Amino acid sequence: MIIGLDVGTTTVTGVAWDAGAGRVRQVARRRNDAARPRLPATRAEEDPNRLLALSREVLAELAAAGAGGPPEGIALTGQKHGLLCVDARGEALTPLISWQDRRTSEPGDDPSGRTALEMAREAVAGLDWRPNGCRIQHGYGAATLFWLVRRGALPDAADWACTAAGWVAARLTGGRPATDPTFAASWGIYDLVRGSWSEAFVDRLGLPARLLPPVRPAGEALGGLSGEAARATGLPAGLPVFNPVGDTQASFLGSVPDPEGTVLVNLGTGGQVCWAVPAFEPPGERVETRPLPGSGALRVGASLCGGAAYAWLNRTLRAWLAEFGLEAGEEAVYRRLNALAASTPDTGGLQVRTTFLGVRGDPSVRGGAIEDITVDNMALGALARATLVGLVDELRDLYGEAGPGGGGARVVAAGGVVERNLLLLEIVGQRFGLPVEPAAHREAAAVGAALLAARR
Amino acid sequence: MIIGLDVGTTTVTGVAWDAGAGRVRQVARRRNDAARPRLPATRAEEDPNRLLALSREVLAELAAAGAGGPPEGIALTGQKHGLLCVDARGEALTPLISWQDRRTSEPGDDPSGRTALEMAREAVAGLDWRPNGCRIQHGYGAATLFWLVRRGALPDAADWACTAAGWVAARLTGGRPATDPTFAASWGIYDLVRGSWSEAFVDRLGLPARLLPPVRPAGEALGGLSGEAARATGLPAGLPVFNPVGDTQASFLGSVPDPEGTVLVNLGTGGQVCWAVPAFEPPGERVETRPLPGSGALRVGASLCGGAAYAWLNRTLRAWLAEFGLEAGEEAVYRRLNALAASTPDTGGLQVRTTFLGVRGDPSVRGGAIEDITVDNMALGALARATLVGLVDELRDLYGEAGPGGGGARVVAAGGVVERNLLLLEIVGQRFGLPVEPAAHREAAAVGAALLAARR
Repeated sequence: MIIGLDVGTTTVTGVAWDAGAGRVRQVARRRNDAARPRLPATRAEEDPNRLLALSREVLAELAAAGAGGPPEGIALTGQKHGLLCVDARGEALTPLISWQDRRTSEPGDDPSGRTALEMAREAVAGLDWRPNGCRIQHGYGAATLFWLVRRGALPDAADWACTAAGWVAARLTGGRPATDPTFAASWGIYDLVRGSWSEAFVDRLGLPARLLPPVRPAGEALGGLSGEAARATGLPAGLPVFNPVGDTQASFLGSVPDPEGTVLVNLGTGGQVCWAVPAFEPPGERVETRPLPGSGALRVGASLCGGAAYAWLNRTLRAWLAEFGLEAGEEAVYRRLNALAASTPDTGGLQVRTTFLGVRGDPSVRGGAIEDITVDNMALGALARATLVGLVDELRDLYGEAGPGGGGARVVAAGGVVERNLLLLEIVGQRFGLPVEPAAHREAAAVGAALLAARR
Repeated sequence: MIIGLDVGTTTVTGVAWDAGAGRVRQVARRRNDAARPRLPATRAEEDPNRLLALSREVLAELAAAGAGGPPEGIALTGQKHGLLCVDARGEALTPLISWQDRRTSEPGDDPSGRTALEMAREAVAGLDWRPNGCRIQHGYGAATLFWLVRRGALPDAADWACTAAGWVAARLTGGRPATDPTFAASWGIYDLVRGSWSEAFVDRLGLPARLLPPVRPAGEALGGLSGEAARATGLPAGLPVFNPVGDTQASFLGSVPDPEGTVLVNLGTGGQVCWAVPAFEPPGERVETRPLPGSGALRVGASLCGGAAYAWLNRTLRAWLAEFGLEAGEEAVYRRLNALAASTPDTGGLQVRTTFLGVRGDPSVRGGAIEDITVDNMALGALARATLVGLVDELRDLYGEAGPGGGGARVVAAGGVVERNLLLLEIVGQRFGLPVEPAAHREAAAVGAALLAARR
């Protein structure tokens, strides 16, 4: 039995994974309440010690349940891109500045009026960013570290910069933080082709190279559970703790039984489309290339507004109903929308562009749209269906970068929005023109981490 | 006291106009129920004898009321573009084929697959259509007559082709039908510059010139009320009946106290923007030039979906409410929409393109759209305001053809939609950037016809 632990943005989730039976024996979950309150809208920070406490609670719950036999190790995954700074003893010196943080878009970093992200991009202009798998974006480790250095906000005692899951792993073993290619690549300064931090990028951005943690394979044993952590969790001291893997990759591994030829469509608050490729492929502006442990690379396209588009329809509708004195609950409205969409054979020509949050990298897109409205085609069921089709089409368009043939013979659809609305399975199949099935496991990221560790 | 009679599409409306006091003393109205039922969607026909009966009822009601003193004459106006064929005695041989009729877009008129309208346009290709004031469109007299001739559907006994109001006038006097430049120009084959039927167009289209009625000035006395019509209405035999004037022009004259420098925005089911110009100006594809009795010409731009866009929002909303068991009445929903729109200071960036019925002459426009939607700007009040702004903007864009300066110093806003929602006055003023006032009279077309007759 391997424990998979997902230090996520919304929840901290653990599973007791029975590798022999290939199934989850137990799930433990805590809502992630580590977010620091009352920050400006551009900032997103979490208290790392609270994240660690939640992780220990989840581990303790799984240990107490004891399902599936004695534990063989702890495999970790979690939110990517974000970073915190720690001192030589591994104590956190900063909050976790998360992937949602946009401080690098705040004005005032430069007399020229450029934002930190713009300055960072200018600093590396002329360098080929494609071997890094992605352009540097807001909230990516390189951008945040650049901001800390430029603002003189890097703590003097900083010894390492690390990710949330990497830090939790280090606190469980009592050792120093490490990272892996999946997390390193998420910072925007890791050369996927050479398999090492991008020296030219680090240099041009003026980042202290000594802060970057060593890169070891995901799923490799980092050390044993410390005595202190063992006492806090009820798990045996010395239990192997494995190097964390990024959550996109873990979700892919946990959702897709056969990575080759499978396209993963993930619809949570945002949306993602992922497909495995045998080797590194140069990324585009909209589709990144991320390392995939053991099997080449993962192409990843993300829409800013996946399930959030359907939530927008729900919220809009409830506000309209309230104008007529009808207070409807969120779940009741989802049930009605799902039923109406399912009983409406098509959208009647109606089209919804679900870019309500804009498009990453294209500031000209100011919002979404409902298009081709005639005097009689905007029934609620048609609009609900068109919204679902629209959010799927945003991902299908990203998948278009896979080119003809694409590499996908089937689609796996995952995420909370799919679980709540099975019509999405049908729509995903139609729009991708491929057979579709639901994800193998609900706690896909935690399962994927456990699967990867079990494989080693 | 002059009786103004508007033989309209939705109603037949009469007013007792007190020319001395400059006000309406009495209104009589009948719903126009003359439409022939169960026709294919491309066809729109009315029973002329029913239209005549309704006209007589309205006249009888005004005669019985006797408001404003003894009648001095009957001034007529009514729906344009449509036609019916009559025999030598003035009896109707065909239904009124109205301006809403689109039989000339039906396939099958030609082995090449061209529609009748396409063939008609080809027949006159190379001729300059601009002196006629407009291109020939579906439902315009020339197109309908072309269709009748090509199909061999013109009755053998046909002696004249005439408009609904022209025929009603002829039936009131017992004389032969005449027409005036405003109606003649609405058929697409009347040369406004030379002031006569366009011989070249009539010839190329193969229309029998003998069917075209003589063109006399609008408001000119055609004859006296026949004994039969006098008995049917209770009005005195011999009462002058004046040559009808087109409803666009009549509405303009009845709404706008000072035609010079005034832009009329009319929002009924459709929308129109009109402005007077001192002399004929070549029309464009979207803005026609129509004669204006006594003062040069009227420029007219029409949107297909004026007030119908707001009705669309009302109907859509009621259908959505019904999905949650709330049955709301049309008027109650208008009241709420108006109140919400009025209390919402702006549209929050939301934009509505109100082309829900397409755009005349541009088949690439398949419908309307709601654009620039963000996750939090589609409150019902914002959408209601954006819909009103959108339908006004469609007309403002047409008014753009007036060029800089335009010729307007103020806007008069008229029509049922304006009367029900005074916020539109404010929006019209904002979007046109001109002071705005409501129309002088509600029954503008009937009043305009009476005003014109009183002037002669």
